[in-house]
Amino acid sequence: MTAEISPPHTFTPDDMDPAFAMHRDGKLEVRSTVPIRDRDDLSLAYTPGVARVCAAIAERPELVYDYTWKAKSVAVVTDGTAVLGLGDIGPAAALPVMEGKALLFKEFGGVDAVPICLDCTDVDELVETVVRLAPAFGGINLEDISAPRCFEIERRLQERLDIPVFHDDQHGTAIVTLAALRNAARVVGKEFASLRVVVSGAGAAGVAITKILLQAGIGDIAVADSRGVVHVGRADLNPVKAELAALTNRAGLTGSLAGALAGADVFIGVSGGQVAEDAVASMAPDAIVFAMANPSPEVHPDVARKYAAVVATGRSDFPNQINNVLAFPGVFRGALAVRASRITEGMKVAAAEALAALVADKLSPDQVIPSPFDPRVAPAVAEAVAVAARQDGVARR
Amino acid sequence: MTAEISPPHTFTPDDMDPAFAMHRDGKLEVRSTVPIRDRDDLSLAYTPGVARVCAAIAERPELVYDYTWKAKSVAVVTDGTAVLGLGDIGPAAALPVMEGKALLFKEFGGVDAVPICLDCTDVDELVETVVRLAPAFGGINLEDISAPRCFEIERRLQERLDIPVFHDDQHGTAIVTLAALRNAARVVGKEFASLRVVVSGAGAAGVAITKILLQAGIGDIAVADSRGVVHVGRADLNPVKAELAALTNRAGLTGSLAGALAGADVFIGVSGGQVAEDAVASMAPDAIVFAMANPSPEVHPDVARKYAAVVATGRSDFPNQINNVLAFPGVFRGALAVRASRITEGMKVAAAEALAALVADKLSPDQVIPSPFDPRVAPAVAEAVAVAARQDGVARR
Repeated sequence: MTAEISPPHTFTPDDMDPAFAMHRDGKLEVRSTVPIRDRDDLSLAYTPGVARVCAAIAERPELVYDYTWKAKSVAVVTDGTAVLGLGDIGPAAALPVMEGKALLFKEFGGVDAVPICLDCTDVDELVETVVRLAPAFGGINLEDISAPRCFEIERRLQERLDIPVFHDDQHGTAIVTLAALRNAARVVGKEFASLRVVVSGAGAAGVAITKILLQAGIGDIAVADSRGVVHVGRADLNPVKAELAALTNRAGLTGSLAGALAGADVFIGVSGGQVAEDAVASMAPDAIVFAMANPSPEVHPDVARKYAAVVATGRSDFPNQINNVLAFPGVFRGALAVRASRITEGMKVAAAEALAALVADKLSPDQVIPSPFDPRVAPAVAEAVAVAARQDGVARR
Repeated sequence: MTAEISPPHTFTPDDMDPAFAMHRDGKLEVRSTVPIRDRDDLSLAYTPGVARVCAAIAERPELVYDYTWKAKSVAVVTDGTAVLGLGDIGPAAALPVMEGKALLFKEFGGVDAVPICLDCTDVDELVETVVRLAPAFGGINLEDISAPRCFEIERRLQERLDIPVFHDDQHGTAIVTLAALRNAARVVGKEFASLRVVVSGAGAAGVAITKILLQAGIGDIAVADSRGVVHVGRADLNPVKAELAALTNRAGLTGSLAGALAGADVFIGVSGGQVAEDAVASMAPDAIVFAMANPSPEVHPDVARKYAAVVATGRSDFPNQINNVLAFPGVFRGALAVRASRITEGMKVAAAEALAALVADKLSPDQVIPSPFDPRVAPAVAEAVAVAARQDGVARR
């Protein structure tokens, strides 16, 4: 390319920010895994040789897993409606996050992920669009889609497709939270199933965390949204929160989040709202606080540490980072390895148990979860997920 | 991954075929272009740093070209309805071709291309789906979509999107054909605009070739489909063929392809049908035969060579291979370099002229077009396309 047709990039003040420098021209590329040195290579990778491979797949559809990238590829799909803490910024502005997600898939899980940013927000349209683009992918990772739409979109895609569909904001967060909470309970010497848990936030993450904790045997969970504890008497609940109300809050709480925290063993914050120091102080002895809002935890970890025995956040600059990257690369790597048709509750719980086990022999208040850079993480999660997929009958090999 | 969850691939007899061996596990991967060595890298490529980039794009949408892969990415979109010579084999079986196309984009043009195989064939649905998935891509390459649907799909997408939409089966073929024909006319010493041309095939390639030759100044073109010459008196023409009938055949021919060839200067075959030796023998002296059906040319090149001065095919094992890979990587590279909103007729003609010029100083009957492995090809085409985009007012930088 000559200078004429590829002039230097326009300089903007943002280039002083290292995040902008790193993002110049994006963060991903697509590469060939086979050599194309000469006409012979070309005649195998493309016409006429490729026609024999296509014909074989047309005759035996399962061969698509053997002779294409489907067995290792995932579409990272968003509509840009709930991007990080930025909210509904649209599909194009969401692309840097999706590229980031894709590179984490590759770096941590060896999974080839493609960012797909959809210019539609209607649930029916979004579902149809993902169904239509699914054939070239072995799995669908939904990302940054606003609640409560995300629940219906995921459920309907799971019904329609025979490949894993996984909303990471829900299940990735839930898996890592469960793993950390297992270990935190061990650190404080409390029985896991008897923990009294308060979850702040009834969006994607809050709902999924609550469900996985119920699944894992915790009976006493109260969930609060911005209007207080979710309970069956509230008239303002959407269907997802109404379901939560029916499944949780066996103590029949009706007041504020702060009130619910009095005597609680565990606080799990995925709301972005703040929690007063008084409320944290009112928790049970040896409390566990996971204040996961990013970049501002619901309670600053230094404050929480005055009252709680174990504190975790979503931040990398404090101990115990609850980071989804601990889960999603291994979950998809394992699911793809056995060509799973979906990701079951059992596979998620198995992922959490495998994560928790990696630090089980050196638990401390400041280490209830592995580091994202621990190279054992993705292989351990993948193997646990693959085994669970077989046990649950969703593996195809 | 342990052996348990990643067993050896099932052996099939096809593994004896080197095409299947090359296709094992597919031909593509997605890779990060930025290093992720530690938490600092992670905090720039992903949260929290990525949020600043997203916010900037939300505020100034044009920045998506600076800080994502959009400026270098293309979606290779098919519905699997017209795959090579195989026909309607569906989206999954088409994936090996789309992966092949994507790797050619990268190897020859430095363009990052993603295979998108759509599970829908309705024109409205296909158009809507591509519009929705467009935000993450800088261009759309339509591939192996059956005629006449392909014409309407391309036209409607061009109206809806502000990025290049290019049906390669049409325009890639047309560009390379025009380039080869320019040089072939020089070899035989005939004036280009005065050539009498017969095109066999009124599908995607035949229509596009006819239109680009008209655009380039050839006045006397007759097009034949399986029922003979397309003319205004035929009642069986779809709208696209009816348009062709109005634009071509000024001699008023009404009979068979063979009849039309009598005295013709040029035969261009993109039909798959066969042409009798007699018909080739009836062409004008110093005839030009481009028998591009693959893998079986309309007339064998050894037979054609008995009567024609210049013979080209779609095959790599004969001289003068009319291969789309000479066009599409450079066309998109050039269009992306200037952030073109679309690909104009002028850009296509410029691509053809640039291609033709690369062998202008060493023309011979066996060399009217460069080799796909000539490293000058994509840069020359890209530069010509970029310059033409600026001239045509569709460049955004």
